[in-house]
Amino acid sequence: MVFKKITLVGRSAESFDAAVDDAINRAEETLAGVHWVEVKELGVELASVETREYQAEVEVAFELEGEDDE
Amino acid sequence: MVFKKITLVGRSAESFDAAVDDAINRAEETLAGVHWVEVKELGVELASVETREYQAEVEVAFELEGEDDE
Amino acid sequence: MVFKKITLVGRSAESFDAAVDDAINRAEETLAGVHWVEVKELGVELASVETREYQAEVEVAFELEGEDDE
Amino acid sequence: MVFKKITLVGRSAESFDAAVDDAINRAEETLAGVHWVEVKELGVELASVETREYQAEVEVAFELEGEDDE
Amino acid sequence: MVFKKITLVGRSAESFDAAVDDAINRAEETLAGVHWVEVKELGVELASVETREYQAEVEVAFELEGEDDE
Amino acid sequence: MVFKKITLVGRSAESFDAAVDDAINRAEETLAGVHWVEVKELGVELASVETREYQAEVEVAFELEGEDDE
Amino acid sequence: MVFKKITLVGRSAESFDAAVDDAINRAEETLAGVHWVEVKELGVELASVETREYQAEVEVAFELEGEDDE
Amino acid sequence: MVFKKITLVGRSAESFDAAVDDAINRAEETLAGVHWVEVKELGVELASVETREYQAEVEVAFELEGEDDE
Amino acid sequence: MVFKKITLVGRSAESFDAAVDDAINRAEETLAGVHWVEVKELGVELASVETREYQAEVEVAFELEGEDDE
Amino acid sequence: MVFKKITLVGRSAESFDAAVDDAINRAEETLAGVHWVEVKELGVELASVETREYQAEVEVAFELEGEDDE
Amino acid sequence: MVFKKITLVGRSAESFDAAVDDAINRAEETLAGVHWVEVKELGVELASVETREYQAEVEVAFELEGEDDE
Amino acid sequence: MVFKKITLVGRSAESFDAAVDDAINRAEETLAGVHWVEVKELGVELASVETREYQAEVEVAFELEGEDDE
Repeated sequence: MVFKKITLVGRSAESFDAAVDDAINRAEETLAGVHWVEVKELGVELASVETREYQAEVEVAFELEGEDDE
Repeated sequence: MVFKKITLVGRSAESFDAAVDDAINRAEETLAGVHWVEVKELGVELASVETREYQAEVEVAFELEGEDDE
Repeated sequence: MVFKKITLVGRSAESFDAAVDDAINRAEETLAGVHWVEVKELGVELASVETREYQAEVEVAFELEGEDDE
Repeated sequence: MVFKKITLVGRSAESFDAAVDDAINRAEETLAGVHWVEVKELGVELASVETREYQAEVEVAFELEGEDDE
Repeated sequence: MVFKKITLVGRSAESFDAAVDDAINRAEETLAGVHWVEVKELGVELASVETREYQAEVEVAFELEGEDDE
Repeated sequence: MVFKKITLVGRSAESFDAAVDDAINRAEETLAGVHWVEVKELGVELASVETREYQAEVEVAFELEGEDDE
Repeated sequence: MVFKKITLVGRSAESFDAAVDDAINRAEETLAGVHWVEVKELGVELASVETREYQAEVEVAFELEGEDDE
Repeated sequence: MVFKKITLVGRSAESFDAAVDDAINRAEETLAGVHWVEVKELGVELASVETREYQAEVEVAFELEGEDDE
Repeated sequence: MVFKKITLVGRSAESFDAAVDDAINRAEETLAGVHWVEVKELGVELASVETREYQAEVEVAFELEGEDDE
Repeated sequence: MVFKKITLVGRSAESFDAAVDDAINRAEETLAGVHWVEVKELGVELASVETREYQAEVEVAFELEGEDDE
Repeated sequence: MVFKKITLVGRSAESFDAAVDDAINRAEETLAGVHWVEVKELGVELASVETREYQAEVEVAFELEGEDDE
Repeated sequence: MVFKKITLVGRSAESFDAAVDDAINRAEETLAGVHWVEVKELGVELASVETREYQAEVEVAFELEGEDDE
């Protein structure tokens, strides 16, 4: 069975760890079989938010089963 | 709420700007909450088309709400 | 019509060629209009499998028609 | 005499060409001796602006004379 | 109005989060209009300091107004 | 039949699109079977020219037939 | 004596190994003194061919003797 | 005296900071003269562990003295 | 327990698959706990060998136990 | 105290070493607390100069004290 | 008029500067209008030569006039 | 027989050539069968040394025989 990878950007007012967890939490809510996560970029947004927002772009790899790949 | 990024390749017989807009137009037809777009590659296809086709590979970032992440 | 690219990781106990084919086979089962594939990474998993598992991460480009982009 | 390079992000509601020109115009208003410009990234901002804003991150190289390098 | 990006290396005896904040704090002391920050590299210095020093190289983007670009 | 790729830098006083077309035009004057073009870098030369010169470094892929590869 | 490197894309209906060999075979038909080859990209073309076409972009390094470098 | 760099992957159930420290701790147990550490990749393993395992791939640079380089 | 990664270049007169296996075989002869392998580069040597020698540079990750890290 | 990094291009009619030194000399004339330098690119200019001009693009890191970061 | 770039590897028993010059000398023997050179890689060959051979892979850019692009 | 690659940082008060030689000298003192060296980074240390220290990070490839790979 193949893996599929999707790209998410998690966000947190606290830390980069929490931003990564935010993305993983979201992935695990809707996807079964998440196997691993790779951090692609870390950043902080300041202009459009009240305080500092830590952001983590991650790739989430999960095992595809019978669903549509798109 | 996390962002998700997908990769599209827009195409135009006119220009790279139009190729990028082509991809954004497509994204906005089916997705709400598109926040930003990053251009990843520009190219021109000549062999399989009648005239020059300008192509732009872009990553489109949008805010995920309740839908399936896959 | 724009192309969309998704990222899959094909797997094979035999070879890297077979791992790439594994990902393409999976893509073609559920997607129409697959145009090209780019190999992004090759690796071998040893710890969590019985024997060597050849893996190929690929980007699959296909033509979008009327469906949801997400 | 050494060159110095600085990084600017030009912005335009019209096109990427205009976004690059925007950054060069700004550089030439305050710096003498601009020699060349390298485009580092192209993107489009949608969330925080009224319409699409084309952005171009560029490195601007200019010849240093007697001023402070910082 | 164009953005300008500068590169800072924040330092902390505690954590990478604190090293990034250190750089942002410094930027906000002397610059108005800081919009976003991108983390470029993380490292730890051991030889020239008493204990582990966490370091974060970041690019800070801010909106240029009337000042000298150099 | 194999493809060969060569690297050209097209130049225009007008736009990046025109600079890319400049390189493709040159390639098509002397080469048959040009299949596709990849944009590798965009830049602007200011010091050695009268006005802004937009430059586009591209790789041009064409089908080799019986000629010398060098 | 200097080396020169050229970029070829070999193609095969069978495998990536055969695609690399295809490019080397072509190079050795017209060039003397081929020293080494570096694989730059692997991909599969599906849209414009009957079946899967494995492609390998390679750089071929050979020793220049008395000929024209261009 | 030259430096040597080795690559380690530290692991923690708590945080990326702890994963980096894990690798540094291991290096300092067996090596004298560790000078600096560069973080190369961050990731999270989920499939083969009970809970989330934060991983940090780092390069550790230390001063070589009389020992075998291999 | 941390992982360590080392870099090997496997070689084969047959194929890239065999070159990767050559490196893994060598690693498994002298190391316990090899977990995964990443392919970093593929190439072919022609000048210093009788026939084509396929080469694969790989990173081998294994679990460190009590031994010297160097 | 944070470090700041700026990018300079040193130039010499003699050698790359001298081009790097040229950039460092310039930095040390106007900046206190230069800590380290990273070489980013080496090149040679021929068209706009009388003889070969060796160029070295470097990043210069120095410790910021009370001055304006811009 | 467009520029073309070719890739050469210069070699010297003395130094990297001499290896770069070796490639430029070769280019200037057979090509008119060489404008600039970019250093892509530096290395040292030891196995197949009597002493250390310094090698420099460079891209040479020259102005195309009426000749064949291939 | 496979090759192994290790990473060293050579140092010299004189030049980058000497820094590379410093690393190669060290490698050849303790390793047989060094085949080639790739330069990965060049830098200059100023803060922790009396004068400028030229540094060269290199990968050294040598042929493995019967010894432990770690």
